[in-house]
Amino acid sequence: MSESEHGHVGYIAGKDDYLKRLRRIEGQARGLQKMVEDEKYCIDILTQISAMTSALQSVALGLLDEHLTHCVVQAAAIGGPESDHKIKEASSAIARLVRS
Amino acid sequence: MSESEHGHVGYIAGKDDYLKRLRRIEGQARGLQKMVEDEKYCIDILTQISAMTSALQSVALGLLDEHLTHCVVQAAAIGGPESDHKIKEASSAIARLVRS
Amino acid sequence: MSESEHGHVGYIAGKDDYLKRLRRIEGQARGLQKMVEDEKYCIDILTQISAMTSALQSVALGLLDEHLTHCVVQAAAIGGPESDHKIKEASSAIARLVRS
Amino acid sequence: MSESEHGHVGYIAGKDDYLKRLRRIEGQARGLQKMVEDEKYCIDILTQISAMTSALQSVALGLLDEHLTHCVVQAAAIGGPESDHKIKEASSAIARLVRS
Repeated sequence: MSESEHGHVGYIAGKDDYLKRLRRIEGQARGLQKMVEDEKYCIDILTQISAMTSALQSVALGLLDEHLTHCVVQAAAIGGPESDHKIKEASSAIARLVRS
Repeated sequence: MSESEHGHVGYIAGKDDYLKRLRRIEGQARGLQKMVEDEKYCIDILTQISAMTSALQSVALGLLDEHLTHCVVQAAAIGGPESDHKIKEASSAIARLVRS
Repeated sequence: MSESEHGHVGYIAGKDDYLKRLRRIEGQARGLQKMVEDEKYCIDILTQISAMTSALQSVALGLLDEHLTHCVVQAAAIGGPESDHKIKEASSAIARLVRS
Repeated sequence: MSESEHGHVGYIAGKDDYLKRLRRIEGQARGLQKMVEDEKYCIDILTQISAMTSALQSVALGLLDEHLTHCVVQAAAIGGPESDHKIKEASSAIARLVRS
């Protein structure tokens, strides 16, 4: 069970909201396929891709904020190597987001 | 018919490839929902979002390259206001991609 | 002479404006050193870095627009391998900007 | 005195390294001015801008990691509103970096 492994309960409160946003993003991915299938204008497809990228980034930033608020703070309160590990892990995830 | 509107035939050759990549991206969006549903570890979800964002960017850069190669070059060969318009439109799309 | 090499005269008109913006960016880089020297608060330094990054991106997007408007359109009007080369080159530069 | 205000001592250890990197970035900003002054080829200027943006991002990610490791962990160990405030502040800085 992942909770006992990681002690994370951070985003459960907002779970339905995240699921709704991710379903909308899945719909955008399907909409893009339809646009390519129908040979819509490239620029219009690119506009949709930018919107979808922003929506994804926004989900990522939300999850990251909850991760910092819960997991990282919890680990920091305990301190020691687990705290260091959580921070390194979060920093790496942030670097991937900034560079992707 | 969109072709007659915009005179674009750019990505038709690679259409099947784009559709395949977009289906995979749709699958990633569904995978993310499953991860949130199962309350997987935040960091693992963020890693998947970074991968999905890169896949989307890669589709966008491919489409943009084909757009420049076909539509923009074609308009530039004719010249005049249509050429200027196509360049402005492409520049705006690029700016949205860089900033998203 | 670089003009004869590449036939570019694109950004000469806006040259003074670009120089002014780049001098401001240089000033921001010096300001950041002062902030680190004085051990200013990390978050305030990060805010300055975000502003500087946006300013740099804005210069890049301006130069790219002028490059497309002049060099690429000119090459496209001539057509052939030079046109193809210019487009590939521009696409690669765009990819670097999107990913940086 | 900023330290007593924020309790941050995070990046002092790496201060000389940050200063060195920021001086190099300042040098890149001057190099860009020289390139524009000499009307160098746009694509070469854009390549330099991408390199400079990556260097800046790398400084930002380093500072952010030190901020999380020191300030945020310290605040989290104490807990309460100060901890919440530090997390919100860090999340906002991350969002600015991701979007810039």
